[in-house]
Amino acid sequence: MSLSSSLLENAVDQLASLPGIGRRTAMRLALDLLRREPHEVSRFSEAIKRMREEVRYCEVCCNISDEPKCAICRDPNRDAGLICVVEDIRDVIAIENTRQFRGVYHVLGGVINPMDGIGPDDLHTNELQERVRQGGVREVVLALGGTLEGDTTGFYLNRRLAEAGVMVTTIARGISVGADLDQADELTLGRSIADRKPYEQSVKR
Amino acid sequence: MSLSSSLLENAVDQLASLPGIGRRTAMRLALDLLRREPHEVSRFSEAIKRMREEVRYCEVCCNISDEPKCAICRDPNRDAGLICVVEDIRDVIAIENTRQFRGVYHVLGGVINPMDGIGPDDLHTNELQERVRQGGVREVVLALGGTLEGDTTGFYLNRRLAEAGVMVTTIARGISVGADLDQADELTLGRSIADRKPYEQSVKR
Repeated sequence: MSLSSSLLENAVDQLASLPGIGRRTAMRLALDLLRREPHEVSRFSEAIKRMREEVRYCEVCCNISDEPKCAICRDPNRDAGLICVVEDIRDVIAIENTRQFRGVYHVLGGVINPMDGIGPDDLHTNELQERVRQGGVREVVLALGGTLEGDTTGFYLNRRLAEAGVMVTTIARGISVGADLDQADELTLGRSIADRKPYEQSVKR
Repeated sequence: MSLSSSLLENAVDQLASLPGIGRRTAMRLALDLLRREPHEVSRFSEAIKRMREEVRYCEVCCNISDEPKCAICRDPNRDAGLICVVEDIRDVIAIENTRQFRGVYHVLGGVINPMDGIGPDDLHTNELQERVRQGGVREVVLALGGTLEGDTTGFYLNRRLAEAGVMVTTIARGISVGADLDQADELTLGRSIADRKPYEQSVKR
């Protein structure tokens, strides 16, 4: 697809560089932006540029934050001895929405992915170890995605944190609440049987 | 979803204003941009801003172009007496890819859509009538989408151009080449029967 305008071509190329956006979709987005008022598009591009340039990270948990310490880390009602390790801010939002967790977080900023050249030092793993080393942490819950990369990252962190003598746990894997057994994949169903627990424990809420 | 950073919130809001991008996807795009180098993101936002501010339109066919006259309108081998009317630049690209059309284009910049408040004067319809009025145009092919809005626009243009005494045609609607009849919708199949043509004509290529 060669376009009649290098300005348009350039914008389409940039939009198509976003994950999950192909050139056809990028073209649709570019034409939508072209139909808007110039000041609207200026506000659009400015918001993205400012986010990248001025964004700050919580000095405790590495979550995205406008303040030096994020609202969760500042909250005296949260249990600072219980740290939930997640990949990014989306996981923090998802867990907060469950209202089941009263501890604090540690945001890695990704998972170990050798294929993309992302190793432990590209993530906030050293900051996590430092938090644990400073003491006061009873338990670290690994809440990472059930992918190969998530498992690798969990394996690595468990080994590093075990040295520090802290308890490392991981979120339960199993059949979704409300789901049919015959729809589940074999791995998940197998794991849910291996990890079965006393009935009394599972019904108390 | 309330975020811990107003900078991030702002960027997500802007990305979610794009057509077909929900807040979840916008969040994914924002996090991807956050992982890039600042100069890359600056190039991204600059490309979009520049496109909107500096884009020009061909003074003949209203297509997006870096020059006052687009490459197709400048080409002496194209038949300037045959104008194909399309909605936007994507349709120009699609028709050019068929290599079946040697005329020139007229880009409306949209279709009549009363629900969105888009009337004939918001499109390049006056420029089209002016081109026809200046003479030298034998035929205007309406190549608009088969939607209610496309049909309305075609109806309107046909009435306006008929006054100028030019021949107005429309692209053929029918069963896709290679498609099964029982997969086609009734409207299309009905139209393909009503618009049947002599076998000899349809096989010569």
